[in-house]
Amino acid sequence: MQFQVSKELIQQVKHLIKTEEDVNLRDMLNEIHFADVAEIISELNLSQATYLIKLLDSEKTSEALMELEEDFRERILENLSVKEIAEELEEMDTDDAADIVAELPDERAEKVIAEIEDEKRAEDIKELLTYDEDTAGGLMAKELVKVKETWTVAGCVREMRRQAENVTRVHSIYVVDKEEKLKGRLSLKDLLTASAKTHISEVYIPKVDYVDVDTEGEEVARIMQKYDLEAIPVVDHDGVLLGRVTIDDIVDFIKDEAEKDYQLAAGISQDVEADDNVWELTRARLPWLILGLFGGLGSVFIMEGFEEALNKYKELFFFTPLIAAMAGNVGVQSSAIIVQGLANDNVKGSLLTRLLKEISLSLISGVTLGILVIVFGFITKMEINFSLTIAISMLCVIIVAALIGTFVPIILNKKGIDPAIATGPFITTSNDIFGIFLFFYIAKIILGF
Amino acid sequence: MQFQVSKELIQQVKHLIKTEEDVNLRDMLNEIHFADVAEIISELNLSQATYLIKLLDSEKTSEALMELEEDFRERILENLSVKEIAEELEEMDTDDAADIVAELPDERAEKVIAEIEDEKRAEDIKELLTYDEDTAGGLMAKELVKVKETWTVAGCVREMRRQAENVTRVHSIYVVDKEEKLKGRLSLKDLLTASAKTHISEVYIPKVDYVDVDTEGEEVARIMQKYDLEAIPVVDHDGVLLGRVTIDDIVDFIKDEAEKDYQLAAGISQDVEADDNVWELTRARLPWLILGLFGGLGSVFIMEGFEEALNKYKELFFFTPLIAAMAGNVGVQSSAIIVQGLANDNVKGSLLTRLLKEISLSLISGVTLGILVIVFGFITKMEINFSLTIAISMLCVIIVAALIGTFVPIILNKKGIDPAIATGPFITTSNDIFGIFLFFYIAKIILGF
Repeated sequence: MQFQVSKELIQQVKHLIKTEEDVNLRDMLNEIHFADVAEIISELNLSQATYLIKLLDSEKTSEALMELEEDFRERILENLSVKEIAEELEEMDTDDAADIVAELPDERAEKVIAEIEDEKRAEDIKELLTYDEDTAGGLMAKELVKVKETWTVAGCVREMRRQAENVTRVHSIYVVDKEEKLKGRLSLKDLLTASAKTHISEVYIPKVDYVDVDTEGEEVARIMQKYDLEAIPVVDHDGVLLGRVTIDDIVDFIKDEAEKDYQLAAGISQDVEADDNVWELTRARLPWLILGLFGGLGSVFIMEGFEEALNKYKELFFFTPLIAAMAGNVGVQSSAIIVQGLANDNVKGSLLTRLLKEISLSLISGVTLGILVIVFGFITKMEINFSLTIAISMLCVIIVAALIGTFVPIILNKKGIDPAIATGPFITTSNDIFGIFLFFYIAKIILGF
Repeated sequence: MQFQVSKELIQQVKHLIKTEEDVNLRDMLNEIHFADVAEIISELNLSQATYLIKLLDSEKTSEALMELEEDFRERILENLSVKEIAEELEEMDTDDAADIVAELPDERAEKVIAEIEDEKRAEDIKELLTYDEDTAGGLMAKELVKVKETWTVAGCVREMRRQAENVTRVHSIYVVDKEEKLKGRLSLKDLLTASAKTHISEVYIPKVDYVDVDTEGEEVARIMQKYDLEAIPVVDHDGVLLGRVTIDDIVDFIKDEAEKDYQLAAGISQDVEADDNVWELTRARLPWLILGLFGGLGSVFIMEGFEEALNKYKELFFFTPLIAAMAGNVGVQSSAIIVQGLANDNVKGSLLTRLLKEISLSLISGVTLGILVIVFGFITKMEINFSLTIAISMLCVIIVAALIGTFVPIILNKKGIDPAIATGPFITTSNDIFGIFLFFYIAKIILGF
């Protein structure tokens, strides 16, 4: 891969737009891959971007449009006429076209669909719009190559050539019966190696993985990954072949899911990006900070309850950030491991073995950290019974934090709630409160204030 | 997708292994997809798993072996003879075979390679072992279909049939010159639609995306995603075609990378799983906890420095966990957004605009949270100048925490260090220290103790 979108190239494009050198612009950009054109467009302002989209062939711009950030694309589409949008849609795969239509205001969407010349395509897009976005139906495209089981290989090759025109990548050829029900599949390789007069029914592979149109996107991704599939056919409740989901959409889906989990773990509750505006970012971030605030105010109350310790053991209060940090860090570690384990389905064994494992884990860490505290106490000339108290209560806090971090996600998951929400600020906040209370409580027992 | 590995099925398999009903076992498992066989194997103990691997055809078990957890696979391989391992390798794609060999002790690896009957394959595996795991060379397989540009379509189809036997999915046919240098590609679709006597040089697409054998895995993944590729050819420095990377490996790669980032953000420094042993988990978790401990001990020193405030404003000390939590949460949010933005290459604009954005973001959040603190103070009858002090110093802490969270990853990235290490415990620990110091310092200025 040698091509790189350079700053000079972007400057050049901007200049050509300004001087309206349409022929040069078209010549230059026609040589460039649509994904790079999208990268260039994303560096332009709205009017420059609109100018380019209107100028270039829909064949190129339709694919480039799909690669742009949703917000920017929506603003560009606002600047295009209903007819111009319909032209873009004519060039797209139906799944992408349906995604675009879904982003338009309802009234405009209807007008755009009415402008699509290919009636079959308009019907397909309307059908795709009826499925929930996060299901196999919402992910699939209508484009595929299908043949009847009664055909010969020669007839099949003929028909396939015709159908394949609209299909970017063939992957598999699906075999259907006369009621359009999915019977099996054929690979292009099989077709190339079979003799022309053979009937499809003799050569096709009757075992074919498929998903129901209602299957959740996550499950589709899991199946395609598990079985290393590059495309999977989608059928309705009667087994009629409706479309297929391809791996490129699943790659995007997997990335989006991973980013969502990552953001949840960091206390960001909506899908935002570094370049979103301040308001969007605040909406995604502030709720978790408010949760943290309530947690913090809760610990103010707890410490007020142990105020009498201030007279004899004021240093205890100097250790609260340490205890809170430990409780938070241990909790986040435990919850992250469990959340990932649940997602990958590799949390095996009984709850009791998991309990014992977490306890031994926290014992090892807790004792090590406790020894470090005692060494610190020795160096800074703390009373030995005081540094022992800190070490012991910290050990208890670590064990409890690990248990909360482990079992809250497991319980949520059992109740059918996404365990990823119980990572990050949720765990740190609840562990702060529990941790600080436990710390003072155990210290009180040992030191007796 | 209807098939599910049920508990009953696993019980049945265990029973058949115990009673050594080999014929029944073979019949039953031959019907099942290798990915499901892998799922079954992962539920067995070591001797049961070894029994199954030895019993079933290498054609099935070789693929199932690849799906197992690395640790479990290594233990199974220890129980197999050099010859048995070589038989498994004969059935695998070369990239998988090389991965397996790389997991073996050196001496055993050599013996296994010597046992491989197909000399070409043994050579290929040895070649793949020379590349760094995380590069295009380490990800690629040697299996692909290539044709010479001088051939006719008919000759090409003949040759392709021969080569395609060893290639699970053809994707593209690569066109090379007589020195084996990559010239372009052909799709199976093109081959089906061209007439038999045409020369390849007339029909092939000379524009082909490729990567150099040294290209980093992350870059390969980025290119394949950006250009929606399902396979990409890999060439050496002279442009000679060496192999190809397919999308299924990239899907795994993307997932692994996402999991690694997620774990780093949670303070887990090695690739561990919920089912790893206590020792492995401790090694991945303890270093970050020790970092947190030092941070916490640092804040003990800071608070000792402000000890005189205890007499007049002891409540200040009750607010330290709140301040630490806020500094931590804000820092983690900011760093997560920036780390993701850097990974997706959408952190645009100058450092100054980013600075202004972070400041306005934290002003909005900080003022909102400050008002809540003042309301809290009003309800709990705190002195108004005291709750104002808390609110103002918290606001400053939030701004500084957001700036640290934003700019530390940016600076690391500029220095070529993975910014993902600056999320999670790293940011919370440093923000705890800065936050607590700032809090007391500002409070001292306002309240004058």
